[in-house]
Amino acid sequence: MPSEFDLIARYFTRPTRHTTLGVGDDCALISPRPGMELVVSSDMLVADTHFFADTDPRNLGWKTLAVNVSDLAAMGAEPRWATLALALPAPLAADEAWLQAFCDGFFACAEAYGVDVVGGDTTRGPLNLCVTIFGEVPAGQALRRNGARAGDDIWVSGTPGMAALGLAHLQGRVSLVHPESCLDALHKPQPRIALGLALRGLAHGAIDVSDGLLADLGHILAASGLAACLHLPQMPSAALNQGAPAEIALSCLLAGGDDYELLFTAPLGRRDTIQQLEHLCPLHRIGTLTSGSVGEIQLLDANNISVPLAQRGFDHFA
Amino acid sequence: MPSEFDLIARYFTRPTRHTTLGVGDDCALISPRPGMELVVSSDMLVADTHFFADTDPRNLGWKTLAVNVSDLAAMGAEPRWATLALALPAPLAADEAWLQAFCDGFFACAEAYGVDVVGGDTTRGPLNLCVTIFGEVPAGQALRRNGARAGDDIWVSGTPGMAALGLAHLQGRVSLVHPESCLDALHKPQPRIALGLALRGLAHGAIDVSDGLLADLGHILAASGLAACLHLPQMPSAALNQGAPAEIALSCLLAGGDDYELLFTAPLGRRDTIQQLEHLCPLHRIGTLTSGSVGEIQLLDANNISVPLAQRGFDHFA
Repeated sequence: MPSEFDLIARYFTRPTRHTTLGVGDDCALISPRPGMELVVSSDMLVADTHFFADTDPRNLGWKTLAVNVSDLAAMGAEPRWATLALALPAPLAADEAWLQAFCDGFFACAEAYGVDVVGGDTTRGPLNLCVTIFGEVPAGQALRRNGARAGDDIWVSGTPGMAALGLAHLQGRVSLVHPESCLDALHKPQPRIALGLALRGLAHGAIDVSDGLLADLGHILAASGLAACLHLPQMPSAALNQGAPAEIALSCLLAGGDDYELLFTAPLGRRDTIQQLEHLCPLHRIGTLTSGSVGEIQLLDANNISVPLAQRGFDHFA
Repeated sequence: MPSEFDLIARYFTRPTRHTTLGVGDDCALISPRPGMELVVSSDMLVADTHFFADTDPRNLGWKTLAVNVSDLAAMGAEPRWATLALALPAPLAADEAWLQAFCDGFFACAEAYGVDVVGGDTTRGPLNLCVTIFGEVPAGQALRRNGARAGDDIWVSGTPGMAALGLAHLQGRVSLVHPESCLDALHKPQPRIALGLALRGLAHGAIDVSDGLLADLGHILAASGLAACLHLPQMPSAALNQGAPAEIALSCLLAGGDDYELLFTAPLGRRDTIQQLEHLCPLHRIGTLTSGSVGEIQLLDANNISVPLAQRGFDHFA
C-alpha cells in the first residue's frame, strides 16, 4: 500500500498558478489581491450520507469540489484556492484506479473554475471528503443572505429539481425513461460562478440551492426578516416534465437538494438587466418577497390558489 | 434530535473579534491585514485512527484545534481564523453533554490562541473532525522546511516523546507510576506560537513534531537536500525519565508523534539569541545539519557511537 506521503505526491499534488507556496510544507501560503476580501467555505461529504460509496469516482471528485465552488457563486466571489482533506478506507487507499479517477474529476473541476489546490490532509478512516474553498470578492461587494428587501423579485437559475429526480431514479422511487439529464444534474453540477459575478451590485440577496428551493429561500427570509409568495406557473418546469409522478416531481422541484443553482432577489427596476444575463444560464422570476410573517412561503397555482407545502427541504439530523 | 441548524446555532456559533462575516451565510468573509500573506492548513482527525472514540470530549475539542494551530507555529504565523467541519454519529448529535464539552474545549483553544471560528459544516456520519486554519505572516517571512543549510544547529522545543508515552500507557504497552504529565502532553498539546513568532528571521527551517522527531526532521532534510547528525546526550530527557523501559522510551522520544513541539534549524551565530528564547519554553540543541547523503540521520551516543534507528515515525497507510 502506498504511504500517506506517496499518495499526496502521486495523486494530490498538481502545479499551482497563483499561489506563493502550495502542497508540501506545514501550511500553504496565499496572497489575496489588494482590495479583496477572502470568501471562505467548508463542506464535508460523507459516504452513505451524501453519496453512495460506489459512486463513479470521477463524478465524486468533480462534485466534491463543485459543491464548494457553488458556495462562492452564491457570494458573488471568484474561486481561487482550495484544500482537500480526505479519509480513505484501506481498500480505497490501495485502489489506484479509484484514486486516479477521483483526482481526475476533482482537478478537472479545479481547472474549470480556476482553483489552485494548495494543501490538505490524507488519512485512514471511513470515506470522508472535506474541502475548504477560498474565493475573492472586492471589499464590501459580497452577495449576502440578509440583503433582501420586501418587494424584491425572487429569481432562480437553471432547472432545480433535476438532481433530486436523478437521485429518486437511482433509489428506485421513480423510473425515468430518459434519466440522463437528471443524472447529469446529480453527478456533475455546474456551479453558477459567472452568474454570481454578474449579480454583484444587482442582487440584494443570494444563496445556492443545496438543501432545496424552499429551504434555501427560507434561509434568505430568516436572514432578511421577510416572507415570500411564489408562483408555480413561473417555476422552471424541467423537473415537472421528466415523466415522474406529479407529486414526486413537485417535491423534487421545491424541496430537492443538490442542484447548486442560485436563488437570488433583486429590485423590480433590474428585471431587464437580469434578463440579459440569460446568455449565462436559464433564469426564472418565480415570485416576490413580502413583509408578511417572517419565513412564511405562499405558493400559488395558475388560479392564484394556495398549494399546500408538505416538505421544506433536507436536514441531516431531522 | 436537534436539527443541523439548531446544532450550528447552539454549539458552533460564537462571537468573532476580527472577522467581516462569520457563521451563517454561504461563506465567511475575512480580510487579511495589508502586507500579510495568508497561511493555510487543514487537518482531519478520525475516530479510532487519531483518537479513541471515548476520549474525553473537552480534550478532544482542544486538540482538534491545537494540532492546526501547531502547523501555523511551524510557519512562524499568527493564528487568526478557522473553520470546523464535523461528521457526527446520530447518538453524539443528540448528546448535549458531549457536544457542550467538545465545544468548550475547542473554543477554549480558539480563545487561547486568538482564533475566530468563522464557519464550517455539520453533518451525519462516522465521527470525523476537519479543521482548516488561517494565520497571517508578513510577506516573505514564513518559516519553511526548505530553508535549512548545512552547518545549521538543530533545535527542538519542549519534551518530545511525552505524548507517545502517554498513549503507550493508555494502550497498556507501558505502565507509568505517574502518567499525568505524559497524558497532559497527549491530551492538551500547547502549540508553540510564541516561539514560532520569535523565530522569524532567526530560524532557517522549521516543522512541528507531529509524525515523530526523526520523521519530521526527515521532512526538513528532504526539502533542504541535507543529512543530520544528532547527539543523544543532548536530547531532552524527560521521556527517558518516566520509568518506562529504555527501548520504549527511546522509541517514543525519537519516533513518537503528537507532541506538537517545534523542530528548527538555525546558524551557529544565533545560538545566544535562541537560548534567550528559553523564557518561552525549554529548548534543546540536539545536533547539526550536514551535507551528507540526503535524508540520512546519524544518532550518536555519549561515546560518539552510532545508535541504530529502527523506526522513523508514523505513516497512516504504512
